[in-house]
Amino acid sequence: MQRDKSMTAAPPHTQLLIGQLLAAPAGHNPDQTIHDGFGNHHTYRQFHTRVRKLAAGLLNLGLGQGSTIAVMDWDSPRYLECFFAVPMLGATLHTINIRLSPEQVLYTINHAEDDAVLCHVDFLPLLLPLLPKVHRPLRLILMADEPCAVPQGFDAEYEKLLADQRPDVSFPELPEDTRATLFYTTGTTGDPKGVSYSHRQLVLHTLALAAGLGTVPGAGGLKRDDVYMPITPLFHVHGWGFPYVATFLGIKQIYPGRYEPGRLLALIAEQGVTFSHCVPTILAMLLSAPGVAEIDLSRWKVLIGGAALSDGLALQARARGIDVHAAYGMSETCPFVTVADMACSQASADIAVRTATGRPAPLVEVRVVDEKMNDIPHDGRSTGEVITRAPWLTDGYLKNSAGTEELWRGGWLHTGDVGHMSANGTLRITDRLKDIIKSGGEWVSSLTLENLVSTVPGLQEVAAVGIPDSRWGERPVLVTVILGEVSVEQDLRNCLDRAIDAGIIPKWAAPDRIYQVDSLPRTSVGKIDKKLIRKLLAEGVIS
Amino acid sequence: MQRDKSMTAAPPHTQLLIGQLLAAPAGHNPDQTIHDGFGNHHTYRQFHTRVRKLAAGLLNLGLGQGSTIAVMDWDSPRYLECFFAVPMLGATLHTINIRLSPEQVLYTINHAEDDAVLCHVDFLPLLLPLLPKVHRPLRLILMADEPCAVPQGFDAEYEKLLADQRPDVSFPELPEDTRATLFYTTGTTGDPKGVSYSHRQLVLHTLALAAGLGTVPGAGGLKRDDVYMPITPLFHVHGWGFPYVATFLGIKQIYPGRYEPGRLLALIAEQGVTFSHCVPTILAMLLSAPGVAEIDLSRWKVLIGGAALSDGLALQARARGIDVHAAYGMSETCPFVTVADMACSQASADIAVRTATGRPAPLVEVRVVDEKMNDIPHDGRSTGEVITRAPWLTDGYLKNSAGTEELWRGGWLHTGDVGHMSANGTLRITDRLKDIIKSGGEWVSSLTLENLVSTVPGLQEVAAVGIPDSRWGERPVLVTVILGEVSVEQDLRNCLDRAIDAGIIPKWAAPDRIYQVDSLPRTSVGKIDKKLIRKLLAEGVIS
Repeated sequence: MQRDKSMTAAPPHTQLLIGQLLAAPAGHNPDQTIHDGFGNHHTYRQFHTRVRKLAAGLLNLGLGQGSTIAVMDWDSPRYLECFFAVPMLGATLHTINIRLSPEQVLYTINHAEDDAVLCHVDFLPLLLPLLPKVHRPLRLILMADEPCAVPQGFDAEYEKLLADQRPDVSFPELPEDTRATLFYTTGTTGDPKGVSYSHRQLVLHTLALAAGLGTVPGAGGLKRDDVYMPITPLFHVHGWGFPYVATFLGIKQIYPGRYEPGRLLALIAEQGVTFSHCVPTILAMLLSAPGVAEIDLSRWKVLIGGAALSDGLALQARARGIDVHAAYGMSETCPFVTVADMACSQASADIAVRTATGRPAPLVEVRVVDEKMNDIPHDGRSTGEVITRAPWLTDGYLKNSAGTEELWRGGWLHTGDVGHMSANGTLRITDRLKDIIKSGGEWVSSLTLENLVSTVPGLQEVAAVGIPDSRWGERPVLVTVILGEVSVEQDLRNCLDRAIDAGIIPKWAAPDRIYQVDSLPRTSVGKIDKKLIRKLLAEGVIS
Repeated sequence: MQRDKSMTAAPPHTQLLIGQLLAAPAGHNPDQTIHDGFGNHHTYRQFHTRVRKLAAGLLNLGLGQGSTIAVMDWDSPRYLECFFAVPMLGATLHTINIRLSPEQVLYTINHAEDDAVLCHVDFLPLLLPLLPKVHRPLRLILMADEPCAVPQGFDAEYEKLLADQRPDVSFPELPEDTRATLFYTTGTTGDPKGVSYSHRQLVLHTLALAAGLGTVPGAGGLKRDDVYMPITPLFHVHGWGFPYVATFLGIKQIYPGRYEPGRLLALIAEQGVTFSHCVPTILAMLLSAPGVAEIDLSRWKVLIGGAALSDGLALQARARGIDVHAAYGMSETCPFVTVADMACSQASADIAVRTATGRPAPLVEVRVVDEKMNDIPHDGRSTGEVITRAPWLTDGYLKNSAGTEELWRGGWLHTGDVGHMSANGTLRITDRLKDIIKSGGEWVSSLTLENLVSTVPGLQEVAAVGIPDSRWGERPVLVTVILGEVSVEQDLRNCLDRAIDAGIIPKWAAPDRIYQVDSLPRTSVGKIDKKLIRKLLAEGVIS
């Protein structure tokens, strides 16, 4: 007997809703502050009121339960207000990737069936020309950091909309599987794919992140006295979920606006930022920005995701005292899947603990499998595809059955990443399935080659890719960006030779050629675009 | 649109199951250890194997999905194995309160419809005489700390059962609302009431506790380098849920067996225990036990629940360096509802922060209401009944519709406790609804009177109760237990007079009489039995 009738007076078990993260937070801290990058701030008490006023304003515009409401903004406290007010109304928050091409932005607005767009003034040149091609009627709300003219056809300006409302809106009681967020992920081919998350998934992701990062001993991980500043755009997998975690913990938050190295460093210093997350490129950019030497970074904790954290970058960060760790996830995983073992890294000087994508997050199961989904030995060497299950993985791609079936074949989410697992359960990603270099029937990990040479002085960026070879199928080459004018080819060769002598890579895995370019092409979310590099090599544009 | 058909390839969202706390823990720590109170231990790796072997053994005895499996044991690693293996099979773990009367134990076995009892040899004198009166066939398994004879009619001995199994059992995929645990709560009248929890409720309780306690800054709260020892019996609301939290965090655990002050203190010293929880009586007992002065308690964190943490006991604990805090909950709430503000107590010397029942735990909503369920002002003075909602409160009482309806009237769980809320959201419990003293139409809080005098030297225990009075309805009296032979009545009077002069209580709230007894009567779970005290006063037994 699992349930008896005498319990019918009890309500259905309380649903997991984003509103609960505000109503019953882990850290109740009404006087704590939330800052923008321009010297303004609100208290949490004011933030609560603003969320309610925003919700009231959206209702007044005829939006609400079932609507899809898009945002185009830099990282701002406004955006955080949308993270709560929109889902709490039972609407879907569509976080538009403002780095997509205009055609792709238009595609996502139509595909998502948006009912409204809240647009920062900086993105009007992108949005306005698209409006005639939008299929459905759109409510339009302008966002701006200072007073400015509201374009014709717009329904409201954000601050004015809030000022006109009373904060006594009542939010609906929703089923926890109600869709809360939606965004688009772009591969290097095909249309963008819509990825969505429910209230339940986001609440569980928030709880598990707080439980996993909070319980790290000492000052590591994420604690209620941290000061949080995202340096991953909020449109990128809801800022990796951390804005929800930070708000749930009631900690001080800084939303820096557009990412400018000087302002980011100044905010770290002035606001005492202790916790951030970003892709490796951003960290590298900050560490080489003018004036960085004068900033104390020794209390700064940084999680790196989106691409591999190389030994070179990790060592550079450690030299500045930064508590840096790799984490692993993707758009389809909300995003957290694994994170470096922070409890262990505090006790160990071993940089490999920090750069390993590490241990599964709480409630996450990870397997490494062959093409038939058989588990591959946990020996720290044998590689296979990484597949995963967790209570917060996306159910699938919006209106894309084929993509969903491919993603979830066999009941596990297929990441498309290749990695190996050690005997103690530490995952290390070695490549994207589609970027791995297949030479003479063997696999060469492009990430391994890139990581090996990452410590060579003067090397700013590097991509290892395979080029077609009539004899071996593919052969590895390196495409490099060098700091200044010097050539580092001989240093790179020496570095690779030492790795071969040490048995880290076999002799045949050494790249045939090393190319030098001014910059590496990137995708809309800032990842190195290896598909395009392969094309440029094939066409002789890189030579 | 909340869900579209293109997502049908995705599995239903992953269910929240107790097995996931083992399969995907927050702290993956296979070589960490779990100890008993007699010098034995297992690693977590061995613990996993033992859980699987126990499950295999239970299946071999014809138990499994849908069974109800009872345990009568001291706090042991065996009991922790049952916490996992039984629910993971889809069976219900019935944790028998071994302090109930034999008639009540029999009642609970029959009411729960137990299919098996795992019984420690110490409780055979309690169990064996009941067996002829059990309504259903029972599988019987003996638990013992050293080799001993297995009584006739028993199916197995626990260690032998495990030794005979292979650990390759496969656990069923369960719906998350499957009942996982069941125990009985006893009031001072009527039959024990069955309270049960689902997998989902226990997983959410575990996550929220880890998130709430983990993110406390510094060494406070609960971190992965803590050493955990329960001093709340595991049959009491699953040891307040902490065995699940500690296992999820992969931390070192000590299960001390029967609670003997000398052994508890020795274990704290030898095993380096840093985190425990208990009722006030147990802490008071430990702080006055022989040899306590030689033990370093300055790294020990203790959560106090089950009854109010008095200023006197808190000061006594602080004098030994113990990081002590009050928490609040009950059998029907899994149990966590509120906990003292640990982030604040680290910065403040104010004992009131530690003794306040504090802030709602993550995902918990708390209201203080009048008889019509209207909210009472949050002024830190006005009292009303505490009602609550959270995703882990019990659905109701087993086979007891009337009790369930009373518990959940108006869609909120009624705690039966009286308290007030401050403007900053801090709850302080002032009484049980049924223990409050109603004098001249006003309420006198028995807890306030007890707390006021708790600092008087020589006072060991105290209960404030109301006795019938023809003029005022009721009048307060104190019933005291004094250490040694001295009279402290004058000191108590002086203490109360100072409180009246300071305006802490009105003059008419001072107790009319102070009685002295050798000991206070207690309920089966160790709480002071005020109903019985009132009866003994009325009958002149206390005079």
